[in-house]
Amino acid sequence: MAHIALKNEELPGIVGLLNYRHETAKPLLDLAETLLRGPSSLTSGEREIIAASVSWWNQCHFCHTSHAAAAAAHLDSGLNLINDIKAGLPNTEVSDKLRALLNIAHQVQRAGKNVTDADVAAAREQGATDSEIHDTVLIAAAFCMFNRYVDGLGTWSPQPNEAYKEMGERMAFVGYGKS
Amino acid sequence: MAHIALKNEELPGIVGLLNYRHETAKPLLDLAETLLRGPSSLTSGEREIIAASVSWWNQCHFCHTSHAAAAAAHLDSGLNLINDIKAGLPNTEVSDKLRALLNIAHQVQRAGKNVTDADVAAAREQGATDSEIHDTVLIAAAFCMFNRYVDGLGTWSPQPNEAYKEMGERMAFVGYGKS
Repeated sequence: MAHIALKNEELPGIVGLLNYRHETAKPLLDLAETLLRGPSSLTSGEREIIAASVSWWNQCHFCHTSHAAAAAAHLDSGLNLINDIKAGLPNTEVSDKLRALLNIAHQVQRAGKNVTDADVAAAREQGATDSEIHDTVLIAAAFCMFNRYVDGLGTWSPQPNEAYKEMGERMAFVGYGKS
Repeated sequence: MAHIALKNEELPGIVGLLNYRHETAKPLLDLAETLLRGPSSLTSGEREIIAASVSWWNQCHFCHTSHAAAAAAHLDSGLNLINDIKAGLPNTEVSDKLRALLNIAHQVQRAGKNVTDADVAAAREQGATDSEIHDTVLIAAAFCMFNRYVDGLGTWSPQPNEAYKEMGERMAFVGYGKS
């Protein structure tokens, strides 16, 4: 049970929190929509993989599984991607550029100052642009927020990967804050 | 120098980042405005103390000093508050409720799952309401994002506390995303 009375106990993870406080839900959803589905030279699939990986490193089951399911929907890859993200994507075709950006995201997850010139240079060497590096850092930072919001208030979440299939498709193809 | 070419090198901390990417600036500023200056039973001074404390724990000099200066402006306390936040507020009159909420914020800063039933019960015992606990968790989580955004992209920041006086007053009395 969540740490506070949300009065919508059937809604899992961040869904109940967004429903509890509409004033903060709006900018949070706008941020997710812009970062994950707005115009970018990174595909939405790549951006959802970054979001899901950070959520996994932060041990946030709800955010990891739902965003990995969204990535799977974008990439039409099947739900195995959810577990593959936990293992560092050994069975998924991922560009060297995305691997270098995931390394930056992992540094951000640990602490902002962990990102080194060498991390950034390695991403550039694989063709990452300034705006892609910017968005990777902000996606990683934003999920350090979303993960703490979801777990800091003790929300519940469905366990099995399959329970996130439809949610992931809605996140991918309908969007954040849309119905 | 920042990790990417912001083309506005004179702007410190998050200011240069917001100027670099307007699409993400809007929801980030809306979130800060709602959390720190929107309607709440916590005063803006209290909420800025939470923001500044989390930023200090994350070792983000720009966010810590600017939000502590904003708290000082709200509380009309003088800039000594900036250093007092680093020390855990030994010289500032702070309610037991705010101290209990700061404990929750510190748990969130470490990891979302660190918040325990006992942390929440201790805050309730000091009179904290559900919406105050919610906002404390979200402020702490949001500053785990802002701090990583500012430091993950290697932005520069003025060193001396005095350099943040006017900025803090503007954040307190004009607001976020307003000019």
